[in-house]
This record gives sequence, C-alpha cells and structure tokens, in this order.
Amino acid sequence: MSEDFQKVTESAVTEPQQVNPYGPNPADYLSNVKNFQLIDSTLREGEQFANAFFSTEKKIEIAKALDDFGVDYIELTSPVASEQSRSDCEAICKLGLKAKILTHIRCHMDDARVAVETGVDGVDVVIGTSKFLRQYSHGKDMNYIAKSAVEVIEFVKSKGIEIRFSSEDSFRSDLVDLLNIYKTVDQIGVNRVGIADTVGCANPRQVYELIRTLKSVVSCDIECHFHNDTGCAIANAYTALEGGARLIDTCVLGIGERNGIVPLGGLMARMIVAAPDYVKSKYKLHKLRDLENLVAEAVEVNIPFNNPITGFCAFTHKAGIHAKAILANPSTYEILNPHDFGMKRYIHFANRLTGWNAIKSRVDQLNLNLTDDQIKEVTTKIKKLGDVRPLNIDDVDSIIKDFHAEVSTPRLAAIKRDHTDLDNDLLNAKKPKQ
Amino acid sequence: MSEDFQKVTESAVTEPQQVNPYGPNPADYLSNVKNFQLIDSTLREGEQFANAFFSTEKKIEIAKALDDFGVDYIELTSPVASEQSRSDCEAICKLGLKAKILTHIRCHMDDARVAVETGVDGVDVVIGTSKFLRQYSHGKDMNYIAKSAVEVIEFVKSKGIEIRFSSEDSFRSDLVDLLNIYKTVDQIGVNRVGIADTVGCANPRQVYELIRTLKSVVSCDIECHFHNDTGCAIANAYTALEGGARLIDTCVLGIGERNGIVPLGGLMARMIVAAPDYVKSKYKLHKLRDLENLVAEAVEVNIPFNNPITGFCAFTHKAGIHAKAILANPSTYEILNPHDFGMKRYIHFANRLTGWNAIKSRVDQLNLNLTDDQIKEVTTKIKKLGDVRPLNIDDVDSIIKDFHAEVSTPRLAAIKRDHTDLDNDLLNAKKPKQ
Repeated sequence: MSEDFQKVTESAVTEPQQVNPYGPNPADYLSNVKNFQLIDSTLREGEQFANAFFSTEKKIEIAKALDDFGVDYIELTSPVASEQSRSDCEAICKLGLKAKILTHIRCHMDDARVAVETGVDGVDVVIGTSKFLRQYSHGKDMNYIAKSAVEVIEFVKSKGIEIRFSSEDSFRSDLVDLLNIYKTVDQIGVNRVGIADTVGCANPRQVYELIRTLKSVVSCDIECHFHNDTGCAIANAYTALEGGARLIDTCVLGIGERNGIVPLGGLMARMIVAAPDYVKSKYKLHKLRDLENLVAEAVEVNIPFNNPITGFCAFTHKAGIHAKAILANPSTYEILNPHDFGMKRYIHFANRLTGWNAIKSRVDQLNLNLTDDQIKEVTTKIKKLGDVRPLNIDDVDSIIKDFHAEVSTPRLAAIKRDHTDLDNDLLNAKKPKQ
Repeated sequence: MSEDFQKVTESAVTEPQQVNPYGPNPADYLSNVKNFQLIDSTLREGEQFANAFFSTEKKIEIAKALDDFGVDYIELTSPVASEQSRSDCEAICKLGLKAKILTHIRCHMDDARVAVETGVDGVDVVIGTSKFLRQYSHGKDMNYIAKSAVEVIEFVKSKGIEIRFSSEDSFRSDLVDLLNIYKTVDQIGVNRVGIADTVGCANPRQVYELIRTLKSVVSCDIECHFHNDTGCAIANAYTALEGGARLIDTCVLGIGERNGIVPLGGLMARMIVAAPDYVKSKYKLHKLRDLENLVAEAVEVNIPFNNPITGFCAFTHKAGIHAKAILANPSTYEILNPHDFGMKRYIHFANRLTGWNAIKSRVDQLNLNLTDDQIKEVTTKIKKLGDVRPLNIDDVDSIIKDFHAEVSTPRLAAIKRDHTDLDNDLLNAKKPKQ
C-alpha cells in the first residue's frame, strides 16, 4: 500500500507548474485534470438512449467521427446483446482507428468468451454491488462477485487485451465491500477499476472522498461513469479527476439510459477552462459541433437550447452592461473562447435591455458617424420600441439610419419629424420571424 | 468573528438527525441543504436570455406560477432598464403574492432611488469586483465600490426593505478584496451577501472553500448565483449549500445570459435526493412541468431532451438488465420517483437490447400465458427483428401474439410456421412513425 502511494506521488511531481488561477488546486498532487482520458460510450451507453437505433453504417460513421475528434477509447454494446451487435463490434474493430475499441459485458464467462473473439482492444466488465442490485438484479453475494470477477479477469488477460472491472451503483454500495473487491482485482492486474454512479445520485464532495480513498487502495487507473439524473454529471467527473481518477466515460450530447451521462461537449467546456493547453492539443474541438449534429440527427433529437458550447445562445450577450464590457474585452463575461470551437460571439443589441455601448458598436458597423450623446438619444428610442415588442436587427438599423439621416441633414432636422410617427411606422412593419 | 462562528454552530446543532445515506455529510454542521431558499430570477436573469421578450401579461402569469410552485423570492429586471420594466415591477408588487418581490440594480444611488419606489420587498445590488470588470466595465477601485455600497445599502435600509449586496464575477476577484467588502456590508446590516459565478468558471471544490471562508467572516445569509457555461451550475449550487450558503438563484429551465444559470427543475432533482421531506413539503413539484412548459413557450424553446425530471426520457429504462431490476424494484435504477413530479415510468421493451424479464412483463400486460422458456424464445425473435430496424410496441405485440397463437393452437403448432416468413411479414409491415 505505501509503495502504491509512493508511486502516485512520484508521478505527480513531474506535472507542469500550475499557472491557471481557476484551474485545480496546486496542492492536489493526485489530480489528473491535466492528464485525463476519454472513454466515449455513445455506441454502448448511447445505444441505451430511448431514441437510439444505430444501423451498422451509422455506427461506423460515429466511430470514425469520435476517432477523428480524438477520444482515447470507444466503447461498444456487448456482443451478446444481439447478433448484429456482435458483427458490428467486429466491423468497427477492423476499421484500424487510432482510438482503442472496448466492449462492455456482464461479469460472466459466457459473455467474456464471446467478447475476446471480436477483435476488441479491451473488455469493460461490470457487476452490480449495491444492496439493491444484489437483491433485485443478479441476486449474488460479494464472495460470488469476487470469484466471478477473478475468473473473467484472468481469462481476458490471458488473451493479451485490456480489462476493466467496474462495480455498478457504486455510491449505494458498502464502502468496505467496494474497497475489498477493488483491492482484489487490482492485485490480479486489471488495467482499470471503474466507479459508476448508475442512478445519478452522487454529489461532488462524495465523489472526491470516494476517489481519494480508492486511490490509496489500488495502483491501477480509475475510470468514472456518472449519470445525470440530478444534473451533476459534469461536475462529478471534474471532481473525480481532481481526486485522482484518470478516465471519464462520455457520450455525445450525453445520450444514455434515462436522461443520460456526462456529455462529451459539456466536459470539454469544463476541462478547457482548467487545462487549456492539454485539451486544445489533444482534441479537435472545432469538430465538436459536427459530431453533435451527427448524433443528434441519428437519434432524432434537437441540440438542447442550453447546451454548453453549441447551444444556439452559448456565446450570445444581451444585457447592456454585459455587452459594454464584452466589446472592451471578451474575457469579462466569457470563460470560453468561441473561436476555440469554431463558433462565433454575438452581441444581442436589439432589445430593451440594450445599452448605448452596444448601439455605438452597431453604429460603427454601419459606418455612420454619431456623437456619444446622439448614440444615447437613439438608444433611448430603441429601448422604447423594445418595450412594446420583440425587435430584430432590421428594426434597430432602421431607427439608427433614420436618426442619422435626421441629425445629419439640416433640412430634415429642421422639420423635426415626430417621434411617434417613427415608432408607429416600425410597429406597423412586418413582425420579425422568431 | 468568533461570535459569528459560535452563532452559526449553535443554529446548526438544532438540525434534524441525518438519516439519508446519500444526503450531506453529517459532519457539515454549516450545511443548509435541508434549509435552503430559492430566489427565482426567470423575470430578471431570464429576461437576459437571447429569446426572451416577456409582455406584462406574460410576466404576471409567470410570477403567479412561480409563487404557486413555492419559490421564496421572485427577482425582477431593474426598473431603470426601461419604462415598461419599471411599470411591470410595480404591477407585480401589487399582486399580493406569498413570494417576496425583489429587483436587481447596479450599485448606484440613481438606480436605488427608483427601485425603492416600486413597492418591492427588497433590492439586490450588484457590482463587478474582478480585475476584468473593474478595468473594462465600471472602471472603479475597491474603495469606490465600498463607498457606493455603504451609501446604497444605508439608503435602502432606511426604507425598511431587504437589501442584498453581491459582487459580480466573484471567482475571479481577489479573495482579500472580497472578504473586506463583505465584512463591511455585513457590519452595516445587509440581509444577504451574494457570490456570483458570472462567467460560469467555478468548480465545486472552489465553491465549497469560498463559501466556508465567507461563512466565517459574515453573520448574514449567503446567496449564490451560478452560470452554467461549463455545466457545473447545479453541482456548484448544491456544494454551496453544503458549505453554508442559504439561498440559490434559479431560473425556470435555467434561461439567462449565454446558456443560462441553475435551472429550477434540475436543482429540485438534486435537492429532493438530499432533503426529500423538506423539498416535498415546501414546493409543489407536480407543477414543475406546467411551469417549464409556460416559460418554454414564452421564450420559444423546446424542453431539452435530456432535461432532468421533465425530459421526455428521464424515466425511461431500456437495457434488458435495467428493465429486469426496475420491474422488481424501481429504486434499483431510479434515485428520483417519477410520481413525486406527476410523471410516469416507462420500460422501453421494443428494441434489440431488451431482455426476457421486460417481455414477460409485456406478456402479462397482454393477458397471455407463456412459460418462461417460451418467453425467452419469443424474446430472441424480438431481438432479431430489433437488429434489423427500430421497433415499436405494435411490432412487439404482433410477434408476441403470433407466437402465443402458434404455441397455444395445436393445429398451427404442428404446421411449425417458418420463422423467416414471420420476420419477413413484419419487415414488410408499415415502418413505425418515429
């Protein structure tokens, strides 16, 4: 045990110096925030999503796109789930991708024998360890679980491929039972042990405690799988890496059982803030949108309006006070740089919350000359109409251009056009499409 | 200082005994997980959402629905944002809701003078304290900020209404600056101080550390506002409550600047797991779906497919192994009970990942009699067709009914109808609508 801990401390000392003020705590020598790996499970957990039915061609297209994006592992549905699942697994193994291919099986020799024949680079074994699952799912005790685990692990290892052993519903399992079985499988040489929040009940501080404890018991890598039922999957994943986990299971858009697991894009948003150089050098972030669109189309869902990074408004700034600062320096209200993801920033100036700095920027874009006082005056007009109905850019441009014409043409200015007429004209104009 | 700490410890000792194994750590005497309050900001932060334009009637409808749901406070857009914003604020104050009405202003006497005349129960004051905002937004130093804060706070207090002072972008502000100003405003008697992760950069362990530190400096309540740019808003809110914060800012569906803030529904999912009695007694959870639909319609977005609780698949179970256990005991794969929210559980049995336990349940629903061996046989048929194309319930029912007819009619059974024909029949049937 003390040897294991020594080993961890040694490897961590070689980490680069901490420079990012909102990155991980430099005291966390166990942190893998700057050294994490991704196991994408869109083709396993994602197949358990209510709407998912992937044809062989679609699976291959998704596997290639994940590989191109740069995920470290691609996990596939168990080859014993159906005949097509088995042959698809074989087909994907033959693609020669850079990513390692894994399949996910129950802790049974029957499943293991089929899995090792598919050509995968590794096998992810799982068994329920919570009292709920032991009672209502497989009905086995911890001794039986340990015995099956050892048999399956030794068999898979004998084939020269990677093996992960994971408990299921880890956060509702007995801690001593968990540590016992992980210690056992670590000693017989698994590549990774897995912690799974199968029901999505875990919270970040629980995760941190469990991972740190487990890290002092095993010398192998720790993989984590977090469901999102209570909205904490991304934060739990990040906190697990801080505690010493190394690998995170993701799905594109987080699709999976119920409302799914850690979304690949959302985790990228979290990780680029903490480890920008590592993330940008390793993953093709500008391909994220295409990857999400591919999967969204395949499972017939829309990209959520509030999706991190690729949601339609992720880089839209609306309040006047925000727009002003963003125009001076985008970092004021942005922790993510849209350009890192091939996205664009948008200042939403056509609304009643707008401010004169945002309107000034629009006046400049329109190549018009107005003084600051004039811009404040036209901003008041825009806010007034914005109180009456939703505005679009054309509305705002019309108001600005009319105002500009008025103040810059002495004859028209003398006529002093009635403001009410201007507003009525705009109100009668075609209502913008939303 | 030691007095403040003493006070906090005393109040915490009266908390009920910890009995929920996945609730907060019993050592956290500062935790407000079982004693939190909600400040809903759909009508302030939510108005900053790209798509939001709320008419007076819609604001009143949303305010009434929030009040009925049970939020403690409703926060409204600053009355100085526009003339309509001011009159809407006055109209909502006159509704006589149970929830207290707040408005949100800059740290300026100009704004404060308007705010206190609207009839609100309290004013939320905010000013940027990060180096970014001090440089690019208002351009003021900490002495100026403290001076304005004291003036505004004393003025609002003199009107006999609640006052909150919040920094903006708190996680990129200097810690000593922050603690200094919070200590100052606490001593002159604010009701709450606010911590705001304005850019969505914070992670749970940072949040916990900052809140615990702040808790030892101020005696007033702590309110938190978390943006969701990196997907951690709900987890940060939960962890802040563990650290001693009392109030969380939410919006329905999380709408707000960029991809928004803590969603009301997602936070309810998190909190009901940790403090079920408190949450169920205080909030009308079965009204959540209607409230979300109301706001989604008003801002013209769809409920995200993966929304906690109300997403279309939040309670759908698909994999055979999950379905088996869920049928025996729903707690095996559910940490949330759909009935608490007026929702229903659904076992998705019409797919190739299905298992014989799920099919057995369907056979029972159809009032047919098959032995376990027969059910396993028909399950194999269903999985086989599920490999070829997406299935719907009618497909599965047809296979089951045909199989049942075959095994229960001696004459037909003797003919031993060719399975391939059966499959072809089904393949040629009208493809189900997705």
